[in-house]
Amino acid sequence: MPTPPGAPSYEQDIGGAIGSAGLSEDILFTLTAELQPALKDLQTARIDGSAPVLALPDSLEDLEHIENASRRVADGAENVVILGTGGSSLGGQTLVRLADQGFGPRDGHPELHFFDNVDPATFNAFFASANPSTTKIVSISKSGGTAETLLQTLTCLQWLDTSIGPAASAAAFTVLTEPKDSPLARLADERNMARLPHHLGVGGRYSALSNVGLLPAAVAGLDIRAIRDGARSALDASLLAPASKSPAAIGAALNIGLAHAGFGTTVLMPYVDVLAPFAFWFRQLWAESLGKDGHGTLPVNALGTVDQHSQLQLYLAGPNDKLFTLILADRPSTNPAPQLTDDAELAYLNGRPLGDLLDAEQLATAATLIANNRPTRILRISQADEQTLGALMAHYELETILAARLLGVDPYDQPAVEEGKVLARQYLESAGPAP
Amino acid sequence: MPTPPGAPSYEQDIGGAIGSAGLSEDILFTLTAELQPALKDLQTARIDGSAPVLALPDSLEDLEHIENASRRVADGAENVVILGTGGSSLGGQTLVRLADQGFGPRDGHPELHFFDNVDPATFNAFFASANPSTTKIVSISKSGGTAETLLQTLTCLQWLDTSIGPAASAAAFTVLTEPKDSPLARLADERNMARLPHHLGVGGRYSALSNVGLLPAAVAGLDIRAIRDGARSALDASLLAPASKSPAAIGAALNIGLAHAGFGTTVLMPYVDVLAPFAFWFRQLWAESLGKDGHGTLPVNALGTVDQHSQLQLYLAGPNDKLFTLILADRPSTNPAPQLTDDAELAYLNGRPLGDLLDAEQLATAATLIANNRPTRILRISQADEQTLGALMAHYELETILAARLLGVDPYDQPAVEEGKVLARQYLESAGPAP
Repeated sequence: MPTPPGAPSYEQDIGGAIGSAGLSEDILFTLTAELQPALKDLQTARIDGSAPVLALPDSLEDLEHIENASRRVADGAENVVILGTGGSSLGGQTLVRLADQGFGPRDGHPELHFFDNVDPATFNAFFASANPSTTKIVSISKSGGTAETLLQTLTCLQWLDTSIGPAASAAAFTVLTEPKDSPLARLADERNMARLPHHLGVGGRYSALSNVGLLPAAVAGLDIRAIRDGARSALDASLLAPASKSPAAIGAALNIGLAHAGFGTTVLMPYVDVLAPFAFWFRQLWAESLGKDGHGTLPVNALGTVDQHSQLQLYLAGPNDKLFTLILADRPSTNPAPQLTDDAELAYLNGRPLGDLLDAEQLATAATLIANNRPTRILRISQADEQTLGALMAHYELETILAARLLGVDPYDQPAVEEGKVLARQYLESAGPAP
Repeated sequence: MPTPPGAPSYEQDIGGAIGSAGLSEDILFTLTAELQPALKDLQTARIDGSAPVLALPDSLEDLEHIENASRRVADGAENVVILGTGGSSLGGQTLVRLADQGFGPRDGHPELHFFDNVDPATFNAFFASANPSTTKIVSISKSGGTAETLLQTLTCLQWLDTSIGPAASAAAFTVLTEPKDSPLARLADERNMARLPHHLGVGGRYSALSNVGLLPAAVAGLDIRAIRDGARSALDASLLAPASKSPAAIGAALNIGLAHAGFGTTVLMPYVDVLAPFAFWFRQLWAESLGKDGHGTLPVNALGTVDQHSQLQLYLAGPNDKLFTLILADRPSTNPAPQLTDDAELAYLNGRPLGDLLDAEQLATAATLIANNRPTRILRISQADEQTLGALMAHYELETILAARLLGVDPYDQPAVEEGKVLARQYLESAGPAP
């Protein structure tokens, strides 16, 4: 059953992260109170549009445009390739996973492929397997100057030019970049490709709820209005409440209070397969927004129950320097249950649906972490749907912005990565002309 | 071109991790020398069989048995499902990725699916998409008592019993478990399923080079003899050399020396798409082997260039407490190069194959990390093939065992995770009989 509009899409429980084994209630109270003015400022900026990241979920007028563009992209497509990296890819990957449980797209929708790297082996394998006549390409770069995305675009363009001719090739492309001059924008115009505007005020890692994330989501058949609706209600819940009741403010205070106490790692561990990419999306948001001036905790992607059999030993018995956030979902016992053996040692499993075991495992892991004095926060959802994922994304964007406020860093820049970009370009240029 | 047998499959360069910005040469020398007796002991134990993990790559007689079993599993199969979690899954996932670039299996081979979780949504989606008559199941659990694997097995068994009848259903299964009494072994025998023996002396996270990893690899069409050959040459290179020249001993000393100096995180970042799962395999090996008694550094999976656009900002400008290991591959400039525009700003990319950019990016990231005083180790490979992956796996298994020696912990146990397993079972039992 989908979450009704307006209902809270998740509940936060920090009981396992405060007190003797985690952050003292006093420090949590102080840090949360410090965020009260920030909540007020951010709500004002959300309303007057000066914080575009927060204003985005309230916007309705661009949704029809995105839906129209998605129909054009999906039309006649078996495969849709999304070119782009970092924030131009992770939000879409995270949302689209809701529509694809790992065994192909929803009926009547194309299969989406997110190419966020430049390994030639991956491109060659795709070109060998895909029909160029039924492949569409969406090329996403905010600046229009990302080297990886530009060369991905040129490589796919050449493949289509050669196989279906230049006119059909250009018609297969949609370019999503800022509405201003850039190499990608010029290429799109030169070849008369369809263009969509990247929001000028929304950086890549905050763009999941803009057309950057919602265009792929709509192509995959998701309800993008429910995504925005979930995001809007999460912002309401955190920005309209007093700081002491604001889930995002409490989450930010918890993280940064523990960071000050030496907890340098924050682990995000959903117990839902389709939320596995959400932990990767969070990882970029948190690392790029906070990792500066020597600050920033290390975000770690995990997945339950899988990482019970990989990371839990270290989590429980290694250094006690991590905050754990578990995303737990309700598991209605509806699956057919196998009753297949009389083995007494299998009695506790025999006749159980898988969901019962997943539920027992997620509760047992939370209880064990807490019993071992590992600070543990629970985000409980009823199910992973568009509404819930929109809410979780907006929650984490706001929590990250508030954490940056407590650390005194700018959540929107990423100055350190420029050096490597310049160097890579120099290496290419000094290699002489292309072969 | 495949690596010739006997040639080194990788080269280790720790120049960017020692000296003023990393570990002092004196400490490295001392810790490496401490490992000299361990190398001697381990080589003896490799030869006399008392260290089965190290003896495994030298074994040849089981390969034909694995190849025969793989032909039986692959026969008539469109889909092969591998059930199991942790070490029963990650090694196979890592190897099989070599054969599947992400767009389906090699010609003439079935598609492999590794189900390492118990999320009912994933199973339901698979059951809805797959033909039960052409699906084979391989169920892997060392102990034969892993709750997740047992319930996965019962769930798949019910699906096949219902759809193709009990006799054909049981014939579709292969069970890989220790040759002794256990719930899984009894189920296999009760239903007359094919069985393969899990090595008694090789724990899950060290089992990639046994039939646990090699059976899926062979089903996918990989050369399992080359995997073993690569592993054997890596063990020779590290066990037969003096400690000061042993790549695994140097790697262990570097990691633990830096850990003592406050570098609590070890990041593994291959610049090769098909090695993305290798970082997850490493993550289990390192965390479960070392994370005990308050010891153990945090292993982090990363992927270049993707994480340049996600984690690099934090790596460069956040806390300086991480060791970076980059796996860099040669990129022969062989791809067709797109020459598609006269745009002067695109001149540095125009006409370049993707591999040139990947090469420039990997070198630039290594140089930038080192320039920012972040300890950085390079593992250079010519290409990701069976020989190389076998070598990297054996290298890391040995490096982990040696790191455990320096920390004074047992690399083969995982005592802390028992508590959660008991609790999950209690929750299920206390929930009363199955619905």
